This record gives sequence, structure tokens and C-alpha cells, in this order.
Amino acid sequence: MGKAITARSEDYSQWYNDLVLKSELADYSAVRGCMIIKPYGFALWENMRDALDKMFKDTGHVNAYFPLFVPKSLFEAEEQNAEGFAKECAVVTHYRLKSDPNKKGKLIVDEDAKLEEELIVRPTSEAIIWSTYKNWIQSYRDLPILINQWANVVRWEMRTRLFLRTSEFLWQEGHTAHATKEEALFESRQMLDVYADFAENFMAVPVIKGIKTANERFAGAENTYCIEALMQDGKALQAGTSHFLGQNFAKAFDVKFSDKNNTLDYVWATSWGVSTRLIGALIMAHSDDDGLILPPKIAPLQVVIVPIYKNDEQKNLITQKVNEIITALKARNVRVKFDDNDNTRPGWKFAEYEMKGVPVRITIGPKDLENNVAEIARRDTKEKKSINLENIAENIFQLLNEIQNNMFVNAKKYRDEHITEANTWEEFNDVLENKTGFVSAHWDGTGETENKIKELTKATIRCIPFDGKQEDGKCILTGKSSKQRVLFAKAY
Amino acid sequence: MGKAITARSEDYSQWYNDLVLKSELADYSAVRGCMIIKPYGFALWENMRDALDKMFKDTGHVNAYFPLFVPKSLFEAEEQNAEGFAKECAVVTHYRLKSDPNKKGKLIVDEDAKLEEELIVRPTSEAIIWSTYKNWIQSYRDLPILINQWANVVRWEMRTRLFLRTSEFLWQEGHTAHATKEEALFESRQMLDVYADFAENFMAVPVIKGIKTANERFAGAENTYCIEALMQDGKALQAGTSHFLGQNFAKAFDVKFSDKNNTLDYVWATSWGVSTRLIGALIMAHSDDDGLILPPKIAPLQVVIVPIYKNDEQKNLITQKVNEIITALKARNVRVKFDDNDNTRPGWKFAEYEMKGVPVRITIGPKDLENNVAEIARRDTKEKKSINLENIAENIFQLLNEIQNNMFVNAKKYRDEHITEANTWEEFNDVLENKTGFVSAHWDGTGETENKIKELTKATIRCIPFDGKQEDGKCILTGKSSKQRVLFAKAY
Repeated sequence: MGKAITARSEDYSQWYNDLVLKSELADYSAVRGCMIIKPYGFALWENMRDALDKMFKDTGHVNAYFPLFVPKSLFEAEEQNAEGFAKECAVVTHYRLKSDPNKKGKLIVDEDAKLEEELIVRPTSEAIIWSTYKNWIQSYRDLPILINQWANVVRWEMRTRLFLRTSEFLWQEGHTAHATKEEALFESRQMLDVYADFAENFMAVPVIKGIKTANERFAGAENTYCIEALMQDGKALQAGTSHFLGQNFAKAFDVKFSDKNNTLDYVWATSWGVSTRLIGALIMAHSDDDGLILPPKIAPLQVVIVPIYKNDEQKNLITQKVNEIITALKARNVRVKFDDNDNTRPGWKFAEYEMKGVPVRITIGPKDLENNVAEIARRDTKEKKSINLENIAENIFQLLNEIQNNMFVNAKKYRDEHITEANTWEEFNDVLENKTGFVSAHWDGTGETENKIKELTKATIRCIPFDGKQEDGKCILTGKSSKQRVLFAKAY
Repeated sequence: MGKAITARSEDYSQWYNDLVLKSELADYSAVRGCMIIKPYGFALWENMRDALDKMFKDTGHVNAYFPLFVPKSLFEAEEQNAEGFAKECAVVTHYRLKSDPNKKGKLIVDEDAKLEEELIVRPTSEAIIWSTYKNWIQSYRDLPILINQWANVVRWEMRTRLFLRTSEFLWQEGHTAHATKEEALFESRQMLDVYADFAENFMAVPVIKGIKTANERFAGAENTYCIEALMQDGKALQAGTSHFLGQNFAKAFDVKFSDKNNTLDYVWATSWGVSTRLIGALIMAHSDDDGLILPPKIAPLQVVIVPIYKNDEQKNLITQKVNEIITALKARNVRVKFDDNDNTRPGWKFAEYEMKGVPVRITIGPKDLENNVAEIARRDTKEKKSINLENIAENIFQLLNEIQNNMFVNAKKYRDEHITEANTWEEFNDVLENKTGFVSAHWDGTGETENKIKELTKATIRCIPFDGKQEDGKCILTGKSSKQRVLFAKAY
């Protein structure tokens, strides 16, 4: 069927690219560094987006939409933020094309239509949003503002990879404004919990919650909280971040409010985001050499039914029974497809739906019908068994839950086995090179040491875990004293 | 409450702007011509989007996402299309900023980071999508492709108005590829029907379906179908378009397929779109001097409950009863809010929810509770009546349907009364100037006459209606012979 992909053991990176293309999640585009999210990939993103959107709304947030462009003068107002993103900004300088006088039918930029002030295509929206909040906030009565935005953003990346790092990507960005520091801190931690909940309970990807070091902090934040996931190749992936922005943006845009005593103070802020990058994490946490393995809760298709028949009479009988099964599955909100296409053979279909990671396949042939059974194949374990058609919908429904849980348990087992304590520089290097995964080690707390370790090993500090215990120790590189282990890893 | 807005009779245009701002649908932004869609406006858009999205999926379409940017060489490939949009393109020319050596903390465009080829921020996506379809289509088995995209687009407008005409707007754009002309024609007509269905049955806005003249056709289309709505001030508004693109884009991007006989032919195309402009149509079709009037099917809030009380005991008793009502309403999927905020008075709340166009208000005070009744106020007719609390949820549910129907009936009555036949140039001008609305008149079929009429009267041909009967007549301007009346109007 021409769908085979490179084995993980042979070339993990090539396996990933092959898989994204062959499973039809995405495609390369004619625009450098930008990808096309194909219908199957977009259906997956819609399920992820809808689940997250519900969680945001359940925690009191509302959606809004702010402009794609940020005037340069606003962009540079919060200097740390501006400096952090300046090197990867797409800049609009003109607003018109005109006919090329030298080439018929071709266009050139109209130099008479140069913008007085350049517009930055948003790499993130703090600047445009906080310049707006200034107009919306006068008093404590206007607070909190709990806004989320689903949008495209552009960060000009030199080395891009489908989903993981693209010049344009889709994401959500929450931007909240609060009267007190405590409230803003609570919000930023709450949204990290939402992300962790989503990653673990929808994507079946276990994550570690923690704090980024100053080096890895979002430009303009006081603190960045993150969830870190582990991929099958032992590399870590930052799956979501939530930032406590302090009063930095309020100060940059002069956003003050009067409290109940009529005292003026700057507003406190958070921002938080996850992106289509999560799809990369999903793929690399679960899939195998035969294709995607998708967790049922967000899989575009949860069940596919493939009929086996030799003639129309057999097909008709099977179709009648399948229609009953579909009705029963849909009553349980199961996303099911009956693939009765005559132009492709069952073996081709099996491989196709394995590639696409459909969690459960049901196969029914004439013999099955006689015996009132069907063959069920699980995508995650590849187990097959024959089950009775009585109560098949209920059994499938339960099986989908079991698959969801099993995928999380397996990913967590792998992840837990790949958190290794290292107490000497040799151990540290040995784990990074041979065992891979997270290395839990002491660090002296300085950016210099962090940079030096990165230079020597390519490993970065993924986070200072929330649940890390206080413990005296010595920095893995410098031997200076340390109070808590941090998690190092090579990362995407 | 400081929420009063300009009366329609005084200044319709100012009324519109006041209303959009005061009802908190949208706000101006710091970016020239771009708007901010505020949470209330975005909730409205989400309801519209979700209803449309379901209709697209029910007709076999899937969503995908293509890049924001179009390389100039692709943009100019379909010459008519490129020429049509060239004058309103935002152009990205650089991909980096750097520190301004002359001003500390400021940034300037890095001239070393000039793109080899300029990128156009998509004003529409035919070019980027058809350059992709070239890779996806080889055989008839790859057809049809029925893809829709929800996205932001940018068209640099000189005169902008909130929702109606903004430099950036949100929309959906369907882009389909077919093996035959008939199939593409069917698709383009089908999607126009979907738009008309949505406008009439969700927005309660009656529309006329028809064909655009060559002058008003989408750049690059063989034919543009449209739905035209009438606003309260007698001006028309194009609410959606569906284009039969023939083989123009297939030829520009060399997209061929082999049919069952292995014969190569160019692929047939359609595209179709509606945008946040629909919100402008919605506002101007229904609202009044007290604020928005929103049709229940897409209103962010369908019912608001305002308690009247003098002390906590009264409030508690009312709240208990209200909670029962809310449970019963939610069981019927009614979007309901209980506004028990102590900081604002009932009169203020009444005005606020009238401004926001909430279809039904329920007021309950201590007396009502004693009598087991509540006061119901309809936003559309402003009628109030007392109704029994028994079955209140079911009665409200039915009332919402009644309001939805009533809004459509009223808008249709107004619209139908404002389609006037004119048979002389004097009549034609008189209707346009005094009665306003659509003028049904004969036209000689030439672009010159159409332009001349526009120059003289500011009226354009909105469409050649599908349901227009064949009838001999003489062009309203030139007296030349004509076979069918067309609809003229001044338009947004």
C-alpha cells in the first residue's frame, strides 16, 4: 500500500516526519517554515481545542479577538518582551502592490504605499492586548479580566519541523488582569493545572509541573510555570507554559486601577498558552512504526468498521447489522466510520487505519454474522479478539476508556522509568547519553552554570519541579551547595 | 447609566457605531482599520460559526488550515485574482528587528533580514490553496476535495467601519475541487443555499439569492452567486458569496487530473465565504434605539433573570425559585444568566440587557413569588406580561421560538415592502432617494450602463435574482431592450 514509514530505531526524526505526512496530519507548504494542517490533523486539533476551550470556560474565561498586527511602537514598549521576540518577527512595511512596469502580468511592491509605522505580525499578543486593557480598566470593578484568544501567531524560525516548530502556528493565549498579586499568582497556577489535566486526561501524556529557570523564562515574565513531557526517544518537550507577569506590562502600558479606597496601583497580569505543538508531543509520546496511536478522547475517529464480503448479498447482510451497531455507538457519542468502499481491500484498510491511529477496529465477515460475533482489534496493544454482537456498543464504549487509561499508564511507566537521579558529573553524562530521559540533579542556581552544562551536554534545565523535596546537595558541575534537585534533559 | 445612543432617525451611521461600542460587541484598536472583537461580540460570532460549521460538515465538508502568507510569485499566478486584490495587500518584507543604535530600548527593522521574495498576508486563499491542490490531485479518485477554513484575512481598506469593513476580519472560506463542471456548479449553488438558510433561519435576516454582474464578480471567478440583505435604512448589504471559479485557478497552478479513461483535464473549482461582516448585517437588520435585538438562536444569552428584593431574606427566597427555573431552562439548552449583582439596580440592569439584545428578561420580586408568577419582557416587541411559574421553562422555550420567527417575519415584511419596480428614470431616482430599498428595474446588460447608473445615483446592481421572471422591457437608463429585471440598491 506504499504507506510504510522509517522505523523509529533506524531514524527517529525521519520516522516522525514520515508519520506526520503519511498519516495525513499535515503537509509542507510553499511558504518557508509554514505548514498546512490537513483535514485529519485539523479534526484532531478541533477536538483538542474544544476540550481546552470548555476547560477555560469552566474556569470563568471568555474568548475575544485582538488584531493580528502590532504597531512597532507598542511592540517595543515592554522592553524585555520586545527584545525576546525581535529576532523572529515578520514585519509588514507596505500596504499595496502594483503592476511591474517591466514584466507584464507581474506585481511589485508599491513604494508609494510604505507604512508610516511598521506592523509586526504578532508573535504573542501581550503588547496589543495590554495597550487595549489600558482603555478598559479604571477601577477594581473592571477586574478581573479573564480573556482567552484562539489565534495564529508568527515567529520566524530558522529550523522548522512539522507541528514542533513552525513559523506560523495556531495556539490559544490567555491574558488576564487582576487587582492583586495573589490573584494573578493563583490564576497562573490554576491554568497550569488545567494544562496538566488536559495533557494527562485527554492526550494521555503524563507531565511534570514546575518552574522555569530565569534563563528559560518567557520574555517579560516574573515567573514561567511549565508542564514538561517525555517523548519515546528520551527527549523532553515543553507542552505548555503559564506566566506570572507581575506588573511589567501594566507598567509598560501604564495600566492602573483605583481600588476600594481610591488608591491607584498597577494591574497584575498573567498569560498562558498551548499550541499545535501539542500534536507533535502527542505523536511522539504514543505512536509506533505502524503509525499513529491516538487516545480515544481526542481521536477524530474512535472506531472504524471494516466489512469482509465476497458478494453484494453478504455485504448487504453485514451492512444491516453494522447500521444497528453504528446507531448504538452514536447514542454513546462514539465517533464511528463504516468503511464499505469497494475499491480498496480489507488489508489495505487495516494498514490505513493503523497508520491513522484509530483506537478500535471492528471487522465483520459472513462467518462472524452467522456466529453473532465481530473481531475487535485494539490499536494500542494490537490485541484482537472475537466478541459477541450483543452489547457490542457498550463493550466498545468501555474498551475506549480502557485504551485511554492504558495509554496513559504506559506513557507514565516509561516516563517514571526515565527520571534518574545523578550525583556525579560522570553519572549525569552517562544517563544523558545512554539511558536518556530526565536527569534529576543538583544545580548551583546560576545562569552561568546552566549555560555551561548546556554547552557541554546539550541538556537544559526543563524545570524546577513543584513536588521536588528540599534536600542538601552539591551542584553537578561546580560542586557548589544546592537545596533542591532540578530536572535536566535534552529537549525539543 | 450613561448608555444612551444616538437615535436612528437622527444619524443612522452614528447609531450603528454607538451601538457596537455600547453593547460591547467590539472596540477600536491601536492598529489602523483593525477592530477588537470583545467577549460579547465573540460569543455571538462563536454561535454563528458553530451553526455554520455544522451545516458545512453536514454537507460533507472538512476543515483544514493553510498558511497566512502567500509568496508573491504564487499570489500573482492567477492574474485576474491578483489584480483584484493587489491594491489592498499587506506585504511582509523583513523577518527581523534589531536594536536602534540611536535610541536605547527602541527597535528598527533589520535591513539585513530582507526576504528574497515578499510575502502577502492572505486577502483570500485561492492562490496558496490551489498551489497545494496541485500536489494533492492526480486522479479522479482524489476528487472531490471539499475543504473549508476558518481564518483571519487582511484587505487594506481606506475607509473602515466596525464589522462592516475592517482591514483584518475573521471569515470562513470554502475551497473545493471537482472532476466536472456540473459538480462544481452544483457545489457553488448548494453553498449559497446553505448561506441563505443560515441568514434566514439563524440570523432571522431574509435574503435574496442571485448572480452578480460581471462588474461585481469576484476577481478570478466565472460567476459569483450572492445573498443580499436589506438594512433598516434601506441600504442593501451583501451577506455572503459563492463563486464558480471554472478552471481558472487549475490553469494558473497547472492542476490536472486523469479521469476514468486516463484523459487529463483541468480541475473545476469553487470558493465561498462569509465573514464577521454578518454581525454588521445582523445589527442593522433588527436593532433599535435602545440597543441590540438578537435572534434567540445565536444570542450569547437568551434569557436573563433579574431579581427584585429589598433584603437578604427576599433575595434568598427568590434565588431558590430562580435556581429551579434555571435548571429547567438549562435542561432545554437555554442560555440563561441570573444577574443577582447587588451593586447595580434593577433599572440599570434592564437598560443593560436591552442594550445587549437579550431576547427575554424575567423579573421576579417578592409579590411575584407570593402569587407564583414572574414578569416576562420580550426584547423584540417590548411586550411585558405576567406568567405563572408552573411550566415557565417550557413557556420561555416556546417564546424564544416565537421571537425568532417574529423577527424574521418583521424583517421580511420590511424587506418585501422595499422591493419596488421602477419603469422610468424618474421613478427609479424617486424610489432610491425617498422610499429607499431595492429597485427592480430593467438594465441593458452592459458594464458601461451599470457604471453610469452608479455614477449618477450611487446605486449598484446587487444581483440578478434567481427567481426573477423573464419579461421584455427597456433599460431604465438607455432604453435598450432587456429580458429580465435586476435589483438595484445603494449598498454597504
